[in-house]
Amino acid sequence: MTHRGFFVTFEGIDGCGKSTQADLLTTALEERGHRVTHTFEPGGTTLGKRLRTILVHDELAVSPFAEVLLFAADRRQDIDEIILPALHQEQIIVAERFADSSIAYQGIGGGVGKERVESLMNLITSGLIPDLTLLLDIAPDKSLARKASLDKIEQRGSFLTLVRRAYLDMAAQQPARFVIINAARTREDVFQDVLAAVLKRLS
Amino acid sequence: MTHRGFFVTFEGIDGCGKSTQADLLTTALEERGHRVTHTFEPGGTTLGKRLRTILVHDELAVSPFAEVLLFAADRRQDIDEIILPALHQEQIIVAERFADSSIAYQGIGGGVGKERVESLMNLITSGLIPDLTLLLDIAPDKSLARKASLDKIEQRGSFLTLVRRAYLDMAAQQPARFVIINAARTREDVFQDVLAAVLKRLS
Repeated sequence: MTHRGFFVTFEGIDGCGKSTQADLLTTALEERGHRVTHTFEPGGTTLGKRLRTILVHDELAVSPFAEVLLFAADRRQDIDEIILPALHQEQIIVAERFADSSIAYQGIGGGVGKERVESLMNLITSGLIPDLTLLLDIAPDKSLARKASLDKIEQRGSFLTLVRRAYLDMAAQQPARFVIINAARTREDVFQDVLAAVLKRLS
Repeated sequence: MTHRGFFVTFEGIDGCGKSTQADLLTTALEERGHRVTHTFEPGGTTLGKRLRTILVHDELAVSPFAEVLLFAADRRQDIDEIILPALHQEQIIVAERFADSSIAYQGIGGGVGKERVESLMNLITSGLIPDLTLLLDIAPDKSLARKASLDKIEQRGSFLTLVRRAYLDMAAQQPARFVIINAARTREDVFQDVLAAVLKRLS
């Protein structure tokens, strides 16, 4: 898959600040004259919005592997409808979550298996890999405190500790693609590092 | 994946009579004292019913590959929720459609690619393969005449001709698993062959 656009993804656990930073980055790049498309998963497409409503319905009892495939369907639609057309127009794509999320959340955190989800992601993305992945790293107790109740924090904290570890391992294994950014700071301080990392790669 | 149940699938183009024959087979096997679970795709599970409503919504403009993944999510849920539990209880599973449908319809008919969909199906079924596949073979003009309008027949006929060809090729390549049954006959005549094929394998 060849193109001359630039594909940057934000990754990280719930509440790490992906949406905020993706918004800031999109605006900053547009101000510098770049054409930018901002997307997010799950839910950046009309199909994705429909799937999002399914994924939050606990009573459907979606099995962990079926859940991976719903995220995969959303991802492929995002690729076909938004990401590839923009890259072929040589735009910058700013994406909140991509294949790494499935590997960290379902492959490792959810127990479906890292290798299995990696193989699946390789197949369903047709080998499309981000040019740059910004990992917004933060401890679960801090990120959850931004939006969740105490009950929820206790329940979800240990899962997110697994997911965070998975992300850090992936970043260590692919240092050319990943930049780890300390997200336990003010949005302005985090964004300074985000923008510096992106501008360095673009230049 | 080891079990001592028996997994039989019905395959074939729209209107070939899968539902009718699966109902008849389920009843006949139960009358012979077997424990039988009857399932179908898409839609045998609660998740599948939800996905089915998405798959018929043309305005979502689901891309061909994303469509494969929605069917895959439905299939995996069917496997986890219905098929594997029943096989582990040594039941007979009677399924309308399974992985062969995705290969024939989306892989070949829809142009996503036979090898790509085969690899995907191998991954998402964890290698689960039916013990017996009954291909209900019929010409599209005859099967569509059972339920569709003339417009629809013209529009869908050439697609289904491709799908029918794909099924026949798959059956030729896997003669130990497939039995081809001429479905352009009365339901009673077709069922005689269906039951004979199943009882032969069960004995």
